[in-house]
Amino acid sequence: MTATIVTLGELMMRLSPPRKLRLRQATSLDVCHGGAEANVAVSLANFGVESRFVSALPDSELGTQALMSLRAQGVDTRFVFRGAGRMGLYFMEEGADYRAGCVIYDRADSAFTCLDASRVDWDAVFDGADMFHLSGITPAISETTRALAERSVSEARNRGVHISIDLNYRERLWTYGVAPSEVLPAMVAQADTLIAGRGDCPACLGMDGDGENGSDEWVTTLGAKLKDRFANLTNIAITIRSSTTAEHHAWKAYLQQGEIEVFSRAYDMQNVIDRVGTGDAFSAGLIYGLVQGMSAQETANFAAAANCLKHAIVGDANCVTVDEVSALAGTTSFGRLRR
Amino acid sequence: MTATIVTLGELMMRLSPPRKLRLRQATSLDVCHGGAEANVAVSLANFGVESRFVSALPDSELGTQALMSLRAQGVDTRFVFRGAGRMGLYFMEEGADYRAGCVIYDRADSAFTCLDASRVDWDAVFDGADMFHLSGITPAISETTRALAERSVSEARNRGVHISIDLNYRERLWTYGVAPSEVLPAMVAQADTLIAGRGDCPACLGMDGDGENGSDEWVTTLGAKLKDRFANLTNIAITIRSSTTAEHHAWKAYLQQGEIEVFSRAYDMQNVIDRVGTGDAFSAGLIYGLVQGMSAQETANFAAAANCLKHAIVGDANCVTVDEVSALAGTTSFGRLRR
Amino acid sequence: MTATIVTLGELMMRLSPPRKLRLRQATSLDVCHGGAEANVAVSLANFGVESRFVSALPDSELGTQALMSLRAQGVDTRFVFRGAGRMGLYFMEEGADYRAGCVIYDRADSAFTCLDASRVDWDAVFDGADMFHLSGITPAISETTRALAERSVSEARNRGVHISIDLNYRERLWTYGVAPSEVLPAMVAQADTLIAGRGDCPACLGMDGDGENGSDEWVTTLGAKLKDRFANLTNIAITIRSSTTAEHHAWKAYLQQGEIEVFSRAYDMQNVIDRVGTGDAFSAGLIYGLVQGMSAQETANFAAAANCLKHAIVGDANCVTVDEVSALAGTTSFGRLRR
Amino acid sequence: MTATIVTLGELMMRLSPPRKLRLRQATSLDVCHGGAEANVAVSLANFGVESRFVSALPDSELGTQALMSLRAQGVDTRFVFRGAGRMGLYFMEEGADYRAGCVIYDRADSAFTCLDASRVDWDAVFDGADMFHLSGITPAISETTRALAERSVSEARNRGVHISIDLNYRERLWTYGVAPSEVLPAMVAQADTLIAGRGDCPACLGMDGDGENGSDEWVTTLGAKLKDRFANLTNIAITIRSSTTAEHHAWKAYLQQGEIEVFSRAYDMQNVIDRVGTGDAFSAGLIYGLVQGMSAQETANFAAAANCLKHAIVGDANCVTVDEVSALAGTTSFGRLRR
Amino acid sequence: MTATIVTLGELMMRLSPPRKLRLRQATSLDVCHGGAEANVAVSLANFGVESRFVSALPDSELGTQALMSLRAQGVDTRFVFRGAGRMGLYFMEEGADYRAGCVIYDRADSAFTCLDASRVDWDAVFDGADMFHLSGITPAISETTRALAERSVSEARNRGVHISIDLNYRERLWTYGVAPSEVLPAMVAQADTLIAGRGDCPACLGMDGDGENGSDEWVTTLGAKLKDRFANLTNIAITIRSSTTAEHHAWKAYLQQGEIEVFSRAYDMQNVIDRVGTGDAFSAGLIYGLVQGMSAQETANFAAAANCLKHAIVGDANCVTVDEVSALAGTTSFGRLRR
Amino acid sequence: MTATIVTLGELMMRLSPPRKLRLRQATSLDVCHGGAEANVAVSLANFGVESRFVSALPDSELGTQALMSLRAQGVDTRFVFRGAGRMGLYFMEEGADYRAGCVIYDRADSAFTCLDASRVDWDAVFDGADMFHLSGITPAISETTRALAERSVSEARNRGVHISIDLNYRERLWTYGVAPSEVLPAMVAQADTLIAGRGDCPACLGMDGDGENGSDEWVTTLGAKLKDRFANLTNIAITIRSSTTAEHHAWKAYLQQGEIEVFSRAYDMQNVIDRVGTGDAFSAGLIYGLVQGMSAQETANFAAAANCLKHAIVGDANCVTVDEVSALAGTTSFGRLRR
Repeated sequence: MTATIVTLGELMMRLSPPRKLRLRQATSLDVCHGGAEANVAVSLANFGVESRFVSALPDSELGTQALMSLRAQGVDTRFVFRGAGRMGLYFMEEGADYRAGCVIYDRADSAFTCLDASRVDWDAVFDGADMFHLSGITPAISETTRALAERSVSEARNRGVHISIDLNYRERLWTYGVAPSEVLPAMVAQADTLIAGRGDCPACLGMDGDGENGSDEWVTTLGAKLKDRFANLTNIAITIRSSTTAEHHAWKAYLQQGEIEVFSRAYDMQNVIDRVGTGDAFSAGLIYGLVQGMSAQETANFAAAANCLKHAIVGDANCVTVDEVSALAGTTSFGRLRR
Repeated sequence: MTATIVTLGELMMRLSPPRKLRLRQATSLDVCHGGAEANVAVSLANFGVESRFVSALPDSELGTQALMSLRAQGVDTRFVFRGAGRMGLYFMEEGADYRAGCVIYDRADSAFTCLDASRVDWDAVFDGADMFHLSGITPAISETTRALAERSVSEARNRGVHISIDLNYRERLWTYGVAPSEVLPAMVAQADTLIAGRGDCPACLGMDGDGENGSDEWVTTLGAKLKDRFANLTNIAITIRSSTTAEHHAWKAYLQQGEIEVFSRAYDMQNVIDRVGTGDAFSAGLIYGLVQGMSAQETANFAAAANCLKHAIVGDANCVTVDEVSALAGTTSFGRLRR
Repeated sequence: MTATIVTLGELMMRLSPPRKLRLRQATSLDVCHGGAEANVAVSLANFGVESRFVSALPDSELGTQALMSLRAQGVDTRFVFRGAGRMGLYFMEEGADYRAGCVIYDRADSAFTCLDASRVDWDAVFDGADMFHLSGITPAISETTRALAERSVSEARNRGVHISIDLNYRERLWTYGVAPSEVLPAMVAQADTLIAGRGDCPACLGMDGDGENGSDEWVTTLGAKLKDRFANLTNIAITIRSSTTAEHHAWKAYLQQGEIEVFSRAYDMQNVIDRVGTGDAFSAGLIYGLVQGMSAQETANFAAAANCLKHAIVGDANCVTVDEVSALAGTTSFGRLRR
Repeated sequence: MTATIVTLGELMMRLSPPRKLRLRQATSLDVCHGGAEANVAVSLANFGVESRFVSALPDSELGTQALMSLRAQGVDTRFVFRGAGRMGLYFMEEGADYRAGCVIYDRADSAFTCLDASRVDWDAVFDGADMFHLSGITPAISETTRALAERSVSEARNRGVHISIDLNYRERLWTYGVAPSEVLPAMVAQADTLIAGRGDCPACLGMDGDGENGSDEWVTTLGAKLKDRFANLTNIAITIRSSTTAEHHAWKAYLQQGEIEVFSRAYDMQNVIDRVGTGDAFSAGLIYGLVQGMSAQETANFAAAANCLKHAIVGDANCVTVDEVSALAGTTSFGRLRR
Repeated sequence: MTATIVTLGELMMRLSPPRKLRLRQATSLDVCHGGAEANVAVSLANFGVESRFVSALPDSELGTQALMSLRAQGVDTRFVFRGAGRMGLYFMEEGADYRAGCVIYDRADSAFTCLDASRVDWDAVFDGADMFHLSGITPAISETTRALAERSVSEARNRGVHISIDLNYRERLWTYGVAPSEVLPAMVAQADTLIAGRGDCPACLGMDGDGENGSDEWVTTLGAKLKDRFANLTNIAITIRSSTTAEHHAWKAYLQQGEIEVFSRAYDMQNVIDRVGTGDAFSAGLIYGLVQGMSAQETANFAAAANCLKHAIVGDANCVTVDEVSALAGTTSFGRLRR
Repeated sequence: MTATIVTLGELMMRLSPPRKLRLRQATSLDVCHGGAEANVAVSLANFGVESRFVSALPDSELGTQALMSLRAQGVDTRFVFRGAGRMGLYFMEEGADYRAGCVIYDRADSAFTCLDASRVDWDAVFDGADMFHLSGITPAISETTRALAERSVSEARNRGVHISIDLNYRERLWTYGVAPSEVLPAMVAQADTLIAGRGDCPACLGMDGDGENGSDEWVTTLGAKLKDRFANLTNIAITIRSSTTAEHHAWKAYLQQGEIEVFSRAYDMQNVIDRVGTGDAFSAGLIYGLVQGMSAQETANFAAAANCLKHAIVGDANCVTVDEVSALAGTTSFGRLRR
């Protein structure tokens, strides 16, 4: 059985200097495409899942190029509108060692920003869908996309589609006059699955764990509070990243399914190639585990292995197969050349 | 004696695919910086002239990078403001043979678009200035930049600075509700030097020559009409480009100085590398000839040689010296390797 | 109304040195994908036609990459089998000026070579199809692919699908012991549309025109003979290429539709970027003209403009839109930068 | 005194994506050449040894390019035949952090695969030779190359040339119906020097050490068993690699010379650039130590340092000098910039 | 208040292979520009300080290119002479893991080497200057530059400008027949600030600390001896680098200001990108701290953070802002992507 | 029968910007190696001739890299000394269209410049040699190399080896105080074959033809005068290049063998890729024709075709086979892709 999963969000063109140059040093920029929900869509398509993406792109060569990147990876793009507005961009200066990376968003007035919820044929979008995934970035961009996000959640809810929300707090977004805490709690209250990073719950839900942020105590107490507040949630995932440098990160995840609480395997990544989209890789892994009916521990480990692999993939989206993720999740012998 | 020349306009980041790929095929984009008046400023700085540029750039890495490109070439950037607004961008898909090139402007809401004329210290800008050069692109962008352009012309006029205007008509600009013919005639009426391409006078001044557009008759009759209408103009330059393909262009210019009318040497360029900024290269050459006191024929030939060389330079701005332009203008033995 | 067109053939990975280096000088090779019928499929998909491709690719990363190239361009890949066999490769050393280019085929034992006709669900393949296009390369590769080609033609014929055949003679193929003249005449006898280059008819059909090969007389007499021999053909297209150097080609086409005979506009291309796939670009243009119901002259001109543009596109397939082809076909003002 | 060393094997073209991209993401592939015995030959030539290579390459530009790579490094290529057959290829996707690398062999029907032992002038090949080195890859490829390998060993034996064999087990080879354990024991029984990695002896000789694979106990007990079984061996080397990730490997070697048993210095390599050919670099270092008459400890340390340096060299072959290897072997102050 | 700082030295073109290739493997070389004092000048300009550089460059395209690199970064180049002599070059083979990097100087007979002290207008150079910085490289190059260095120090001294000297010992320089110990002590005796690496004082001043080189005891005893010998020094900085491999370095600094002695924060850098110029980055950070009136501890930490960041910047000069250095100096949360 | 040909000269590293950038725009430089006589040696080796090169290279990585380039192409490098001195360099800015290319020599004090004639074992060098080729560049470089050139000619003469001299006048060389006309006539007087470009005879021999330089009259009258003055010459070749732009050259050659005078086929090259070394390609073609015993017309045509092909090869040396040259010389159908 193949699951059908819908995501909705913005796909941007990413421009980043090669060879870890600074932006100001660059005489060329590498191009790829990404966006939180698009990354989840692409990763799921690479897992062999039927992956539908709802979005809007400009009616220009740049929009066509972005669309091609989705099609190449097997995403169903029938619900990607083409029309007015810019191509959303972001410039990324990769970090290196102790030099932190930096993103410059240039996405104002993009085609997605203008996507009105009324243009979407929600019946068609959710036809046969098993899950719907959304991140906190979409309501953060503009009034229009906030309305789109809220509408999409209610449309999914009305059709009984499982809803997954990744809070995905970005402090540089949310500039149109509304705070995440005014928007996200209501959306989470309708969801089945919640995904949160270390800083997301305080900023988006006004909630925090006890003890040191990132500690096991902090995670489990936060998990308990979330369970108390949002009884609707059947899956609560909290991810814990610790970075020593831009290229050295440690990572693990916590997953709560009702009474069951597990921690995933932890990874210590010393040669991170591309940190962007690793959270989305986790989301896709989690969703895959859920639709495949894996146990909580298997799901957490599969999603953590997906996240780990993404750190070693250039570009926003996790270009790996289920076999590769399973192989990593199931071994302790790392890094052998297969030949 | 070194002349001091002021230009005012927008500097954009240009993103173009390598190897004549289409935009949709590109996995990286080459970066350079340009803009009509900035190109003139850079070319003049490369000619050893004191070149001042008035503009605005965002207070970001992208703005710093753009500023560095000007400083590297020796442009005086004391009057380049830093502040709010985006980095103006344009994507350029180079043409090849019979495939036409294409520019996608992405300059709305740039820092320059927001530059209010009241922020500029006009006394300092024009202190010791010999000439002021402006193009029709600046008033085409927004209401704010139109006001800036008009103010700059009157400030220059009040100080007796020689004013040069390149009409530079771009049909994709002028989208804020005003037609070029409502703006440019009044500016030309205050100028000393006018530069126009084949399509500029009809669109911007509502004027046309007689006979076939681009023919000698057309040029000279247009020149006569311009002289009649704008008695203030001491130099009227009309440029005539004919393109067989994207890489094969023929080019010459007409220059009128009162009773004197000359045609420059004509060039037949069969391996054009970069067509962008060739008009600006001509403007810079013309300005250089004027401030150096060259004869009309020398000026036209110098400016035409500058234009010709620019077709063989990668990037928007004419990265050549006076010696190189003079050498081309003075020879009929082309293309020898100097060793 | 959108037409549905089926093509069948091999998709190869192409490896070619950058910067016009010789193969022996290369320290990296540029990668793209192509194959005669695949190029037609991609070009048609770029024209907005429903384009189905029947083929086989290995079950490896290389096969996935090839598949992604088709999907990105919007080709329907449901009938691309995955399985045993190598990835078909070809190395291409681009020509330059008087240095001729060279192709090294490395396609023996590819997955496509092993594609047995019995694995294909012909009903599904031709469901709703308007046209079927095949080239003489498929029967040239191996016994198996010859059988596949013959079967596909008869399956299309049985369903009344319009059949188009491009003879596409390659002297380095046809190495399995059968001559093209033993195979192709019978296939042409079932077709509706025939496409032939200057050397194809002598080699594949044992037929030739009168007078100098490539002259108008030669073309029209050959056309008449083909009409006499193959009464089934409603469209006979003959293409005439003359190359001065590897980068300077002249090209035009002849199209016969019953009593109507036309020559397309002729193009003189002096800066050819990529000559591979230009014939396939013509085939796609011809097919598009036919399914759109263009007149013979319009069809010939559209197809010739498509061919001309392909010479300025990097890669095997014609990455251009209908608007771009029409614009070239309808203008005599070439090479202007659109901005 | 300069030693003369003969190796025999296949030289392949390696194609690998730049920037740690996955194969499916690559728009270009970096090219180099390598093969187990060729790598040993090149490394020895870089050590100043007279290095002769016996092989076959296709009579094409690709074969010429491969030959040039050997000649550039100073290998004696008089015994490299040119003729029919493909160029052997392999595609390599480099690993990164926890993402394992992967090799796709595409070497079937290569020119080397068809090299018949009878074409080789064995007298000339071994004229003045001090040592002959072979790896278990050659007999793994095809029946023909197995015969070639067996013949070469007996020819060397007959002439009293010291024989070195690296078992080099690759599970994806050995596909022609014979198991390594049917072939290699007889060859080892004629050799003087044996080189084995952690998995080689079980697979090729049906032998294993006691205790945990890779532990000192395991190594020494395996060494003892090998000594018992193959009394002819004067040098038994076992290499022990442990990889934490694709870029983090630990490595050391064991060397037994009769009663003498030593371990080399161990290296902990945290930023591996290219893991391929590191075993061959060890073999070359070992051979160099033997022909130079170094002590067992010196030999083991020299060979281990050679291996270590190879991890920091792009390409299959160890492009380092004796001075560089000796410098690393003799210092504990690593990584200083020499200036 | 903005400080004005003068440096004097050579600016070279650096040529280094991409992708950590060895020089012998390179088919292209990356270009940047650097030199000890130029690096300090550029870093200070990036800190917003008025930075003047005294030097000489050839009157060629290569000299112009070098000059452009300084101007781009905002260095005042009015005192960079143009004239006879070569462009000073150096080839750099980056190290990798256990493979040490290597510099090949090719700077003999450069334009700077011929710069006679009498050509410099010292009044103009030091007009308004707060500090003058020089390194031991300038007197190491040639008799002429030694005289230039000595003259510059006395000119600065006569005008009461604070003098900073970085000993910067390079054993491959100092080839013109004079030892550093014959030159540098006299210069240090006129200075206010001294900067020394672990090997500098023994080689240049004939002085050493007690205990193991690099230990805290060694540093503090050396500091005490320097204080005793050079009572004129108000700042004594000693830097301690330990390298495990070419890409793994640990680093900290000692700073003595009269009775105050502090150690900077220590950094453990595991993914060094470019080690060249890190000492100069420290010097610039130290100078900045001094002119800003930071405390000893703040100064040491700021300079150490500047040094640390430079390890993650491609090129010789530290292309970072004060905000970035301060951010690193003030945090213990490293490597977070700013978005 | 394979001929053995000796050449003597300098091999330099060439550094040139990619993508027709100017030197000042380049952030990387492409590397290849060349030098007049080395280019002849490499071209002859590619023709299958036994090609010996006498030279000197520095004992550094740069020298090794240069040596590898010769070995790769099959040149016998036994007489290339390694030792003191720099690597000779030259920077080349390629021309484009009307922008002339430019070479910056940086070869002073190179290892070759210091090569003393007494170090060469002339018996070994000329053992079995059929021809010796030298160009006017070697005596132009320094007193030492002039002595080396003169000695080599007399050593060849003494052994009866056929001597070929290409005058190869470079006005930027000959800076050590001696004029070419003081050196070359005596060398030509000992030669058998003379090769001269349009400007060579006036500058080097003080001789000129009648009529317009480059006209047939000019060539034949110059040929007659040379024959009169140098009765020893059995082959006199004069090459006539006309350049319209940097990328558009016309070329033909004149060859006199006693009473026989022929002109080669003329080529009109419109997309020149690399003009450097085209003269050397002609020399190699001429030598090959001579040693193969071709007729005068065949020789001239072969050498002209070799020259023509070199314009389409990246790098200094003519990387083409005899088959490729013969194919071009024997066809009028240019530019067809071989597949």
